[in-house]
Amino acid sequence: MLIVGELINASRKPIAEAIRNQDAEAIKKIAKDQYEAGADYIDVNAGIFVGQEGDYMEWLIKNVQEAVDAPCCIDSPDPKVIERGLAVHKGTPMINSISLEKERYDALLPIVSGTDLKVVALCMSDEGMPETTEDRVKIADQLINGLVQNNVKLENIYVDPLVQPISTKSTFGLEFLNAVEEIMTRFKGVHTICGLSNISYGLPVRKLLNKTCAVMAVAKGLDGLIVNPLDKEMMAGLIAAETLIGRDDYCVNYLKAYREKKFE
Amino acid sequence: MLIVGELINASRKPIAEAIRNQDAEAIKKIAKDQYEAGADYIDVNAGIFVGQEGDYMEWLIKNVQEAVDAPCCIDSPDPKVIERGLAVHKGTPMINSISLEKERYDALLPIVSGTDLKVVALCMSDEGMPETTEDRVKIADQLINGLVQNNVKLENIYVDPLVQPISTKSTFGLEFLNAVEEIMTRFKGVHTICGLSNISYGLPVRKLLNKTCAVMAVAKGLDGLIVNPLDKEMMAGLIAAETLIGRDDYCVNYLKAYREKKFE
Repeated sequence: MLIVGELINASRKPIAEAIRNQDAEAIKKIAKDQYEAGADYIDVNAGIFVGQEGDYMEWLIKNVQEAVDAPCCIDSPDPKVIERGLAVHKGTPMINSISLEKERYDALLPIVSGTDLKVVALCMSDEGMPETTEDRVKIADQLINGLVQNNVKLENIYVDPLVQPISTKSTFGLEFLNAVEEIMTRFKGVHTICGLSNISYGLPVRKLLNKTCAVMAVAKGLDGLIVNPLDKEMMAGLIAAETLIGRDDYCVNYLKAYREKKFE
Repeated sequence: MLIVGELINASRKPIAEAIRNQDAEAIKKIAKDQYEAGADYIDVNAGIFVGQEGDYMEWLIKNVQEAVDAPCCIDSPDPKVIERGLAVHKGTPMINSISLEKERYDALLPIVSGTDLKVVALCMSDEGMPETTEDRVKIADQLINGLVQNNVKLENIYVDPLVQPISTKSTFGLEFLNAVEEIMTRFKGVHTICGLSNISYGLPVRKLLNKTCAVMAVAKGLDGLIVNPLDKEMMAGLIAAETLIGRDDYCVNYLKAYREKKFE
């Protein structure tokens, strides 16, 4: 399963502060910690800095890549900011994200077309947020087809079915989980990914809901997650889930994680 | 989700000792603890006492039902022992279990036929333990059809797809989970149940695997579990999973469990 470390996001106070103070060491430490905890990609987001988002995106990527030998997940709704990030990034990053919103789609499609970039395809359109499984699968279908027709390989597409809070509607968890399964079954070879802390918005003991939802999503086929890799309980649950769903021959990864004391 | 408290099983040392010493208070306490922790049925098993299993089954049921206002899950492979248990049980118990093994099937079918007993239908036949999803669904199909044709209501049947250790074969978790989903999809109205501690046999940190597997099985549709209800982490995960899969309108149960400090 592909793990994107989510911590370098300017919506988090210590990150906003580090960016504002141009505290490179702080950013490097969080990049390193996440990488060592198992992140395959380091998410970088400077979205709260209107007007300066591009400059800060460049700065974040440079510092992350000085600290760790891992690619970034360039996280912005703004295609111009993504282009700024791509210009300084070494290796092949992930783009987070394209969606079916016309303006965003039209601007990002030429950027990813014919490349080897990994692309998060967010199930959102100009009609708003999807509610049902069918809403999500319909958007996923259009996104996948559009990307593949523009020479993006299926295996580079990570569909994000978009998690919505169960406190808003009791069926939002079910609709999301079924969307993961439907997308993974219908489009063989594509990936699914999500950030899922929204699922527990407005409810107590959010960590319990988040980690439970992550494991349930793996049962439905999810193979990517934008997550805090320093959350040991979450990571332990994911390692166990991968072993249980048959993605860990001879339980090798599980036993290795045990020896590395990841379950303590 | 239907919770069967698994602790009163003579294969556990303190229970064997309590039975041997006819220590009614010990049995009553464990029954009460499980009931208060959320068990809907109290499993009773005296299987290790060859020759005395029937006597002890009677004794266990009497004591459990003096302690709590809940039905038992009469747990024996021996139809004669089950009949002894039924004779003293008040209310409607669950029978654990019928299977497709000819001798057991032929002896138990007339006992459950036309009754309101709940029946665990274990996916095992004279050909041995099932390995694949297909093996399990084939046995489930025959068991369900046989029971329904003999006037057992579909909603009283709890199919146990039979968990096997992932340490033996890396795909055993996947095959089990897919069997749960296939059975719940194909036979609308039937239930699924299992004891799942076998899944982690031979591996370290078994509680992590067991609770992760439980939550994944709920994602696949499982709606019954034979489990230790005193395991707070397991029960918290199940409550969260039920809420996430849309079985908890307005998150009422989740919030109630939170107020009752079940997540601490």
